[in-house]
Amino acid sequence: MPEGAPRDAEIIAVGSEMLTPQRLDTNSLFITDQLNALGVEVRRKVIVGDDRANLVEAVQRALRRADLVIVTGGLGPTEDDLTRESVAEALGRELTLRQDLLAAVEERFRRRQRRMAENNKKQAYVVDGAEALPNPHGTAVGQWIREGSKVVMMLPGPPGELKPMFAEQCVPRLASLLPAQSIRMRLYRVTGMTESDLDHLIAPVYTKYSNPVTTILASPGDIQIHLRARCTTESEAERLLAEVGGAIEDLLGDRIFSRNGDSLEAVVGEMLRARGATLAVAESCTGGMLAERITSIPGSSGYFAGGFITYSNEMKQRALGVAAELIERHTAVSEEVARAMAEGARERSGATFAISTTGEAGPESNTGAPVGTVYVGFAGPDGALEAKRFNLPGDRTRVRMFATQGALDYLRRKLLERT
Amino acid sequence: MPEGAPRDAEIIAVGSEMLTPQRLDTNSLFITDQLNALGVEVRRKVIVGDDRANLVEAVQRALRRADLVIVTGGLGPTEDDLTRESVAEALGRELTLRQDLLAAVEERFRRRQRRMAENNKKQAYVVDGAEALPNPHGTAVGQWIREGSKVVMMLPGPPGELKPMFAEQCVPRLASLLPAQSIRMRLYRVTGMTESDLDHLIAPVYTKYSNPVTTILASPGDIQIHLRARCTTESEAERLLAEVGGAIEDLLGDRIFSRNGDSLEAVVGEMLRARGATLAVAESCTGGMLAERITSIPGSSGYFAGGFITYSNEMKQRALGVAAELIERHTAVSEEVARAMAEGARERSGATFAISTTGEAGPESNTGAPVGTVYVGFAGPDGALEAKRFNLPGDRTRVRMFATQGALDYLRRKLLERT
Repeated sequence: MPEGAPRDAEIIAVGSEMLTPQRLDTNSLFITDQLNALGVEVRRKVIVGDDRANLVEAVQRALRRADLVIVTGGLGPTEDDLTRESVAEALGRELTLRQDLLAAVEERFRRRQRRMAENNKKQAYVVDGAEALPNPHGTAVGQWIREGSKVVMMLPGPPGELKPMFAEQCVPRLASLLPAQSIRMRLYRVTGMTESDLDHLIAPVYTKYSNPVTTILASPGDIQIHLRARCTTESEAERLLAEVGGAIEDLLGDRIFSRNGDSLEAVVGEMLRARGATLAVAESCTGGMLAERITSIPGSSGYFAGGFITYSNEMKQRALGVAAELIERHTAVSEEVARAMAEGARERSGATFAISTTGEAGPESNTGAPVGTVYVGFAGPDGALEAKRFNLPGDRTRVRMFATQGALDYLRRKLLERT
Repeated sequence: MPEGAPRDAEIIAVGSEMLTPQRLDTNSLFITDQLNALGVEVRRKVIVGDDRANLVEAVQRALRRADLVIVTGGLGPTEDDLTRESVAEALGRELTLRQDLLAAVEERFRRRQRRMAENNKKQAYVVDGAEALPNPHGTAVGQWIREGSKVVMMLPGPPGELKPMFAEQCVPRLASLLPAQSIRMRLYRVTGMTESDLDHLIAPVYTKYSNPVTTILASPGDIQIHLRARCTTESEAERLLAEVGGAIEDLLGDRIFSRNGDSLEAVVGEMLRARGATLAVAESCTGGMLAERITSIPGSSGYFAGGFITYSNEMKQRALGVAAELIERHTAVSEEVARAMAEGARERSGATFAISTTGEAGPESNTGAPVGTVYVGFAGPDGALEAKRFNLPGDRTRVRMFATQGALDYLRRKLLERT
């Protein structure tokens, strides 16, 4: 790697509106994506208000820690816009009015037949030694400032201005500072285990490697494993991914449901489509969430027949033909009722397969079964009729999410058995 | 204000996943809202990875600047979870294993009939001098630490754990540190108009007042108007809210569906319950999302009979008895089919009322009707049978969300007519 090639970055987002309960800094996601593709990691993000002392300190601290400091926002024409002054102060440099930039801003107003306010003049000031980054979509000029081996960038806050400026002006400048390199990614999605169990299982593999970098992201019933390899050649990056990814695949086996980032509903949908099969659902505790997930996939009408939301016992009988005495004998939250619901949904829809959910999502239990108890039923051709019990953690929303994930994964495994 | 009453806060969100292009720290929005309601401002937000040196420095710096330091995330059981150790180091204190907390974590695993991994033991360590904040929804215990006149809080990252802990445990502790003042809030929820139309209508009222503070939050089909008055007496705060709120209510009329923050599904549920009525749904384009929203309300089994997700035309005939020639003549996306679906759902469920959705959610149209065309049907006792057409903006997800909102609001208005 060349001497002084940037390896990490800090992003400072400026604007008091991002310290209210309404607004987040979303520009940093775009910037991070662009930086990661160059092999640069983001180490810290800071959000500060329109407050000069706070901003000066943030820039100075960031410059000590990171190779690249990217300051977004606060480049407008108002009193509140303090990024130019603060970066100049943090670097101990002056601001100078650039006549060519002033002329460009004036021209922009003229073209739109609007009067330029006096305070727009602020936007033509540049830190000494900076390269100005033209802004085709607004009046706020960006700046690119070398500081020893480091770089400070200033970019306007509106995403429609920032994104093209970063991609078209900052990325090529950054690439010229970086060694020739290849970056390759791999993404696994896993269900059916907790994050800590997964980490316990695969940490002995991935912690041996600093390249590829492994990142684990967990949400209820869905864990993502990201691998990112950075090498001088593409084949070396692919070799490293195959080595680490292969070891992870061996450990996780069919708990991996996706190797390309697809959601579980998309994976199951693709399996149904490939088999020319159709699906129906019968939902009690999940109340429509299972069907909602399945139909969130464009084109799901090709394999999804429909569903029955049988929230009451009466609807389980009326819409699915579940026998009243079965519910009486076993309660609605039982293996027997889950099976009968799946069977009824399959028969009454004419679908190839059906899955069902019945359980206690809370806050209270209606049948005496503990909150979190969920049965998933499965019906297939050739008389297949089964059910599985889950004990799920969390509140009503989480139990329902886990239950739909469990139901889709149960179906996935049943379809795998039939390959 | 009493000596040392906290006036400002910094929020430090911990987790390398929030430095990827995929994830934002959204907890800070909730925390900011809660702090603002107490009169505390957020001055800076910092997002750091799972990196001890970086985190220690962030905590130490934040403590110099702010009265309250709130650290979220990094309290899990894995090697990567470093918040406990880092905060202890930043404060120069030790961590001690608390046997009572360990027993509680063990008990939690036992109750779920799952094995506790050895690394979960980490979660029972507490910084010396800290108060442990119990977590009813997970294994990560929070901590409340006085440091001179300042406070450091540690809270788990998952929103479902953090939010109740902050609201129920941190807010009362914070309130006790603050001067006696009365903060009163009012919250309206509105549907059936755009944010800019709403703002145009009510801005002439609310911009006249700096107290109460008015905040407008918009999501698809659902606009929230928050009023927050802060006064030395409760009656003065209530008087201000009544003055501004009353003027806003006069302007918006029955477009306001909630005056206490309740969601539209909760409001409609309460109206059904009050009338001793039951509801069934028949969904095509919304694919279960409507039923999912209705059943997300605890206790909805008291008024929700169930639903039919008739995604295919065959299912519309089989499950709801919609005549094939009706679909043939008008297509599935028509007023006629919407009415027939509602009628079929009402008859086959035995419910008092039924609503239906049929439309084109995109990305492609199946019937020739433009994407965004949605019909909502309504069936009630005494032969009531109606439908309404919506032209909805946005992509598949937004069309489906708007459609469920439109359907629930249509039902709300039909129920209002029958009061």
